[in-house]
Amino acid sequence: MMVYTWWRSLAAFRVRIVLNLKGVTAEERQVDLRKGQQHDQAFRAVNPQSAIPALVLDDGSTLVQSMAIMEYFEEAYPAPPLLPADAAERARVRALAQMAVADGHPLVTPRVRAYLEGELGHGEAQYLAWSRHFMGAALMAMEEHLARDPQTGMFCHGDRPTLADVCLVSQVVGFSYFGGTADAFPVVRRINAACMRIDAFQRAHPLAQPDAPKA
Amino acid sequence: MMVYTWWRSLAAFRVRIVLNLKGVTAEERQVDLRKGQQHDQAFRAVNPQSAIPALVLDDGSTLVQSMAIMEYFEEAYPAPPLLPADAAERARVRALAQMAVADGHPLVTPRVRAYLEGELGHGEAQYLAWSRHFMGAALMAMEEHLARDPQTGMFCHGDRPTLADVCLVSQVVGFSYFGGTADAFPVVRRINAACMRIDAFQRAHPLAQPDAPKA
Repeated sequence: MMVYTWWRSLAAFRVRIVLNLKGVTAEERQVDLRKGQQHDQAFRAVNPQSAIPALVLDDGSTLVQSMAIMEYFEEAYPAPPLLPADAAERARVRALAQMAVADGHPLVTPRVRAYLEGELGHGEAQYLAWSRHFMGAALMAMEEHLARDPQTGMFCHGDRPTLADVCLVSQVVGFSYFGGTADAFPVVRRINAACMRIDAFQRAHPLAQPDAPKA
Repeated sequence: MMVYTWWRSLAAFRVRIVLNLKGVTAEERQVDLRKGQQHDQAFRAVNPQSAIPALVLDDGSTLVQSMAIMEYFEEAYPAPPLLPADAAERARVRALAQMAVADGHPLVTPRVRAYLEGELGHGEAQYLAWSRHFMGAALMAMEEHLARDPQTGMFCHGDRPTLADVCLVSQVVGFSYFGGTADAFPVVRRINAACMRIDAFQRAHPLAQPDAPKA
């Protein structure tokens, strides 16, 4: 199994956490998004959408999109479970995950930055303000749902990590890229801290990757 | 079962298609996004994120996020299946779905329009160009993945509709809101046409809803 990844990518971070939680090892190939390597012809042959992560299975089939890859690992490697058993509870966990994967992260991808700075002529300060706004809004959505629901426990859903926690942690780290902190989101902050005490989360952190900058 | 919905919402459209395919009936309550009703205190008590659809089950629990709701229906009402049986094939269908749900649609929501026109001072023409750009990019991603993969059949995955087709159709309709057509995406166009010959898709179409404008 082989995964195209990059230390700073939030989507690759999510998949790394799931690999670690499931105890699955995958060979890594780096695609440096800052250098635009996702647009290289060699990588576009893997994923024409020029996005990571992409997972190549041993039979050669290629999976893309972090949420689809995480659901694949949940089905192919059921232990430990990262979704509850009950259908409505699974929907709650998936909804929290989607708040990060669909409502937060897509607003701060390289292609969005390129459009804001290229076609619309904005500078870095406006891109940072934009990113803080939308990453913060996604965290606020998670906070409000988590804070009011008795199903929230030590983690997003009860007392064991689920895909919602994986996505929450990626959202908190993404927010920090743009100068935001989880201080305004007390439940998110508490759950993020609980996750980051777990080895599988720690080892997956962007700054723990070999190609990450030292600071 | 009750669903908060609106004729023009692409996410509500996806959930309507799934309800129709599964033969499930839900009471509908309209939340007019153009009038800003998603921000009313009454609706924020249902979904503090101010987003539709929201599904209220008979036991009072509330599900949000279209992808999570569709997965709920797939689990709670397994027939007809809208995901394949094999884990890697399920990942392929979910990845195609996420290209619409996570990469296309979130870029054209009311909150993004509000930021582009408010904080960044752009006009309607720039919002339309932005929307065509990102909705078209998501359709191109779907087209490139569909065109090169022998698993593509009459529909996105084989010869029966799946969640990928539900999302593809919503993406084509969303693109049309901003003046785009599927002409540049021949496989997408062919599959969209196949879907729109099915009653469950036709009845769910935004313009088939009672509160839709006549033209």
